Amino acid sequence: MKPQGSSEPVGLALPSPYLLFLGDVTTAAYAKTAFGLRDWAGDKCIGEFALPGATVTTGLPAMTPADALKAGAKSLVIGIANEGGKIPASWIPALVEAIEIGLDIVSGMHVRLASVPAVREAAQRCGRALIDVRTPPPGIQVGSGRKRSGKRLLTVGTDCALGKKYTALAIAWALQDRGVPADFRATGQTGIMIAGSGMPMDAVVSDFLSGAAEMISPAAPADHWDIIEGQGSLYHPGFAGVSLGLLHGSQPDVFVVCHDPTRTEIVGLPGLPLPSLEELIELTLTLGHRVNPAIRCGGISLNTSALSESEAADAIADTSAAIGLPAADPLRGGPEFDRLVDSCLA
Amino acid sequence: MKPQGSSEPVGLALPSPYLLFLGDVTTAAYAKTAFGLRDWAGDKCIGEFALPGATVTTGLPAMTPADALKAGAKSLVIGIANEGGKIPASWIPALVEAIEIGLDIVSGMHVRLASVPAVREAAQRCGRALIDVRTPPPGIQVGSGRKRSGKRLLTVGTDCALGKKYTALAIAWALQDRGVPADFRATGQTGIMIAGSGMPMDAVVSDFLSGAAEMISPAAPADHWDIIEGQGSLYHPGFAGVSLGLLHGSQPDVFVVCHDPTRTEIVGLPGLPLPSLEELIELTLTLGHRVNPAIRCGGISLNTSALSESEAADAIADTSAAIGLPAADPLRGGPEFDRLVDSCLA
Repeated sequence: MKPQGSSEPVGLALPSPYLLFLGDVTTAAYAKTAFGLRDWAGDKCIGEFALPGATVTTGLPAMTPADALKAGAKSLVIGIANEGGKIPASWIPALVEAIEIGLDIVSGMHVRLASVPAVREAAQRCGRALIDVRTPPPGIQVGSGRKRSGKRLLTVGTDCALGKKYTALAIAWALQDRGVPADFRATGQTGIMIAGSGMPMDAVVSDFLSGAAEMISPAAPADHWDIIEGQGSLYHPGFAGVSLGLLHGSQPDVFVVCHDPTRTEIVGLPGLPLPSLEELIELTLTLGHRVNPAIRCGGISLNTSALSESEAADAIADTSAAIGLPAADPLRGGPEFDRLVDSCLA
Repeated sequence: MKPQGSSEPVGLALPSPYLLFLGDVTTAAYAKTAFGLRDWAGDKCIGEFALPGATVTTGLPAMTPADALKAGAKSLVIGIANEGGKIPASWIPALVEAIEIGLDIVSGMHVRLASVPAVREAAQRCGRALIDVRTPPPGIQVGSGRKRSGKRLLTVGTDCALGKKYTALAIAWALQDRGVPADFRATGQTGIMIAGSGMPMDAVVSDFLSGAAEMISPAAPADHWDIIEGQGSLYHPGFAGVSLGLLHGSQPDVFVVCHDPTRTEIVGLPGLPLPSLEELIELTLTLGHRVNPAIRCGGISLNTSALSESEAADAIADTSAAIGLPAADPLRGGPEFDRLVDSCLA
């Protein structure tokens, strides 16, 4: 991770470098945490450790826990996000081996590491830490809505899982490249592992939602930007409460709308259409105005991973023309993305 | 409590009748839980039990725990909502006495009963239950947004603490009086004690907010109404996430806007104006449409407790004329309230 503009610690702090654990994964989609770490925190990742039977690889060097410890690793990070967030029995001997070698364990699963008896006992015996990044830190207050110094940008989405984290990371890095003091603020388990700290918004008790968001983007110098990873969607009937608590607590000066132009319905809820970009922009302005009257939309981030290069270029140009704001795919970069960043800073 | 239209159990279930515990309270506002139980669940309340020094009374017969047990009480309910939700040391001997006599303890405090060693030990020794109504039940799922059978009404507010619970109770009772099958669905600690069951929305982990609301208003016969107690306000920067999760999970056919005409700013956040009734109606329609395209506003519930009778009548008439919908103070009743209920059922 690049040097950050603010040294203020927030939320959890994770021991790095990491050894990425892939279990016995055979479906690439389940390894998205490992891929996210490789792509966005490559300098914190020493290698990968998979069980026999695994067919997915991050391309990082294969290492045993003993190899990784010798190479400087401080923790084994579970790089899998499977359905249900469970820890399969087949993983336990490997986790215990890593603990006995001298690594801490970092997990973003719903199941807490200490609830697995063999893992808990090994950690107690060896004096190693078990870190569940989905456990919020203590001391979260009710949100006040009071304006804080510094600038804030929040990514919002027409749905879940279409690029809010990647967009926030790309914008934070672009600002740092330009010499603008900026921090990526993680709000989900993979983002927290990438940043090494953050707030698991979806695990916070609901009375403290916006207070948790206020806590991870504290008052800062006037020219400093917090680039905050969005969660869910204001139009997602399962998660909109989290999205609104995060919006109110983030009090963004600028938001960037994330969208997948090939998606027409909310994932997992067939028949429920995505909102239009115009609807989402208007609703975000209405709701965000309550905590920051200066809120504005900086532009559109399109996830064009399912499109060819020319299809992507067309989608980006069409979206920008239709909305009247810069549009770009941050992972494709180019002058479109520069213009999107310019617009955010304007 | 009047007989309910649906027998489906949801969330917590509390042992009644109750002995109301007032501690050593000297400020009536702190006894609002006891007053709410007296006003809305009088048939569940056997008496009150106060410590020396208390100056507030509900008007119910004073009883010791032993008297109350003889009269049929099943639990001692802490009727105080003090700041910080703490259990003062001065209360502990009385709680232990009630447990030893044979009563369960019901609490809506933030602090859990079992975290007080003397209370925990007494309950274990005597085999009595310690019930924290702010602890959500297990098994809450992520919200799906899928339409359920039956009718639902949600009270929403321009702020916290201005009558959303009382309005929902009054409407539920009015429907039952008319022979319409209806249940009051509690979403906060006092409401849960009144109803004997419900969901403490502000204590639910945020990922499950709308799922929790779906759980307490399950599919029902087509002519059945769930009258759901609202929480917070979409315009409250501390609690709007809870309000939106509750709105999405409730998928109301009808909402009633609750407002205090003497209030101009959000309580506790000086300088932050209340939204206008028109703004709140429009935003609730926009957000609620996502889960129920037929959503409509049934009218306005005004809390006129700070006004004289003639001032209240003027405020009700002026509001109804300005908004073009029925307005009433449910606690004053009258033909205005009948018209508000008619409008909800229309």
